[in-house]
Amino acid sequence: MKVKSAVLQEMGRPTPYAKSKPIVIEELELAPPHDEEVLVKLLYAGLCHSDLSVINASRPRPTPMALGHEAVGRIQQVGKNVDNVQVGDIVSCVFVPSCGTCDSCRTGRPATCTTGSKANGAGLLLCGQSHLSRQVSKPTDPKVIHHLLGVAAFSTYSVMNKNSVVKIDPSIPPKYAAVFGCAVITGVGAVVNTAKIEFGASVAIVGLGGVGFCALLGALAAGASSIIVVDLEQSKLDLAKKLGASHAVLSTKDTSLDNLIQSIKQLTRQGRGVDYAFEMAGSGPTLKIAYGITRPGGTTVTAGLPHPETQFSISQVTITAEERTLKGSYLGSCVPTRDIPRYVQLYKEDQ
Amino acid sequence: MKVKSAVLQEMGRPTPYAKSKPIVIEELELAPPHDEEVLVKLLYAGLCHSDLSVINASRPRPTPMALGHEAVGRIQQVGKNVDNVQVGDIVSCVFVPSCGTCDSCRTGRPATCTTGSKANGAGLLLCGQSHLSRQVSKPTDPKVIHHLLGVAAFSTYSVMNKNSVVKIDPSIPPKYAAVFGCAVITGVGAVVNTAKIEFGASVAIVGLGGVGFCALLGALAAGASSIIVVDLEQSKLDLAKKLGASHAVLSTKDTSLDNLIQSIKQLTRQGRGVDYAFEMAGSGPTLKIAYGITRPGGTTVTAGLPHPETQFSISQVTITAEERTLKGSYLGSCVPTRDIPRYVQLYKEDQ
Repeated sequence: MKVKSAVLQEMGRPTPYAKSKPIVIEELELAPPHDEEVLVKLLYAGLCHSDLSVINASRPRPTPMALGHEAVGRIQQVGKNVDNVQVGDIVSCVFVPSCGTCDSCRTGRPATCTTGSKANGAGLLLCGQSHLSRQVSKPTDPKVIHHLLGVAAFSTYSVMNKNSVVKIDPSIPPKYAAVFGCAVITGVGAVVNTAKIEFGASVAIVGLGGVGFCALLGALAAGASSIIVVDLEQSKLDLAKKLGASHAVLSTKDTSLDNLIQSIKQLTRQGRGVDYAFEMAGSGPTLKIAYGITRPGGTTVTAGLPHPETQFSISQVTITAEERTLKGSYLGSCVPTRDIPRYVQLYKEDQ
Repeated sequence: MKVKSAVLQEMGRPTPYAKSKPIVIEELELAPPHDEEVLVKLLYAGLCHSDLSVINASRPRPTPMALGHEAVGRIQQVGKNVDNVQVGDIVSCVFVPSCGTCDSCRTGRPATCTTGSKANGAGLLLCGQSHLSRQVSKPTDPKVIHHLLGVAAFSTYSVMNKNSVVKIDPSIPPKYAAVFGCAVITGVGAVVNTAKIEFGASVAIVGLGGVGFCALLGALAAGASSIIVVDLEQSKLDLAKKLGASHAVLSTKDTSLDNLIQSIKQLTRQGRGVDYAFEMAGSGPTLKIAYGITRPGGTTVTAGLPHPETQFSISQVTITAEERTLKGSYLGSCVPTRDIPRYVQLYKEDQ
């Protein structure tokens, strides 16, 4: 069938993108779903920082590529081996397709699914193929279009593996439903799955994008006693305070990291630092801040995805002598089939 | 009372130490124990890498300092508020005196005891004082002698806080009893407390000093399915194989880290890396190896104490995208009063 998709032509074109136009809306041919796949009519999609990271080559992926992954859609057609959704179901898209059979999937860690990670890296669906193609005038032009994260949601329709979708309550407005499969599970999951914070823990969140705000909501829901938020924008800090953050700390590009770390620590019990610090911006300085404001014996979690050349460098001895823990959180360490319905329910109860 | 102690005069003297003589056996005055303290007659002490690290200034401490901390002794005298040991008891010394009242101690994390860490850093006992002094000829000479890690075990007698000693089974030969409070709890504890490996997990141990060998014993006791050991010395690898290691990998100072990491990964399930890698040497390259051979979703633990200027630098994105965990282990995350008797019992059962 014919679909319209936002296709990234190549990575790393110069800004402003309005001029270099790395993305073109193209009419593509979408092959029908295989037995394990579904055809989804996209209803709403968010623009996530990870989309931008592919555009600017911070997350290198093969091109041309149909972008978009934070989305909600309606099931239009199902392959014969699809049993988790039916035609008409409203589904949240999940940016790691999990095979269900590898060690990671079998042990509740679908974020590190071996087959899914490989497919995502290659820009293909879990089956190892692309379903998107374009008509080309010259045989040397690329005909195959890659899928971003098995979702390719900036399209009118998309084919996905059945495990790239999770059925959700259809009463959630699509605008909000779209973010459950990415920002919500990543942010809330980092707090409740990766860090597993205890009721009453002290928390800091460095970076208030969509994921950072969801981490704030997760920390509030999980009963954190004190939540320090750190960002470069006062308006985001103000909103975070309204939502329930205890302390808001404005950083600037010129702030000395050491001074910032020391001033944040002064906000914590005995000045030792927080129990859990969450890095939610994906930059070197933000992780340095998060690590720096974590107390001895505490845990620093990072969900940010910086450029592959970004090195995180810390005094090695502090890891041991302060018994520190540094954890990465991808997909919020979630099991999407379990967690997305849970978080949707929490959202509904708070209406 | 008069005691003889091995006193480090100053840190960082040039090697060979036989020539620069940083340590002098001195006759010192030892003040009697306070109410919370005990007088210990030292029976046997190990020379731990952390002693060497103070001598060569990798672990900066104030000098002059009476060294030694991995030791066993007999209680000679107790202060009036001491209730955990009696005169005549055989005790293992513990290198972090825990106050029992700070957040860390109250939550089962005595390795990060606030007061103990501060006292150790200052080279004083938990009471904030030194009990060791020397007669000086010139008033400008240092009179106060610092205590290493609240133990100062390279002495005929030493005064320690009551929480620097744990009563142990007196039938253990002192030569073996000496290592329980340091190498054993650090190595075994890193595996069973810090990492909490599961039965059947795959494990790698990088660096076979006393702590590395104890980690090997811990991994065997905890039921690891496969244990890869890595060291620079073939004789240590041979011993590790005899003890039960599955694979022994010889490294050399000239080995390319990338090649070494790739060849070790080939020994693991699907070439993905081990579930748990333990860095037990305290150097930059060993932690790079340990991190490099840990699988996506896996855990890297470091118990090594490198020079404070040693930076650990990794591609930040791998932490998130591979959902990696990096944990420091100090004192093996042990509760010495609980764990030392347990490990002594395991040792006895294996006689």
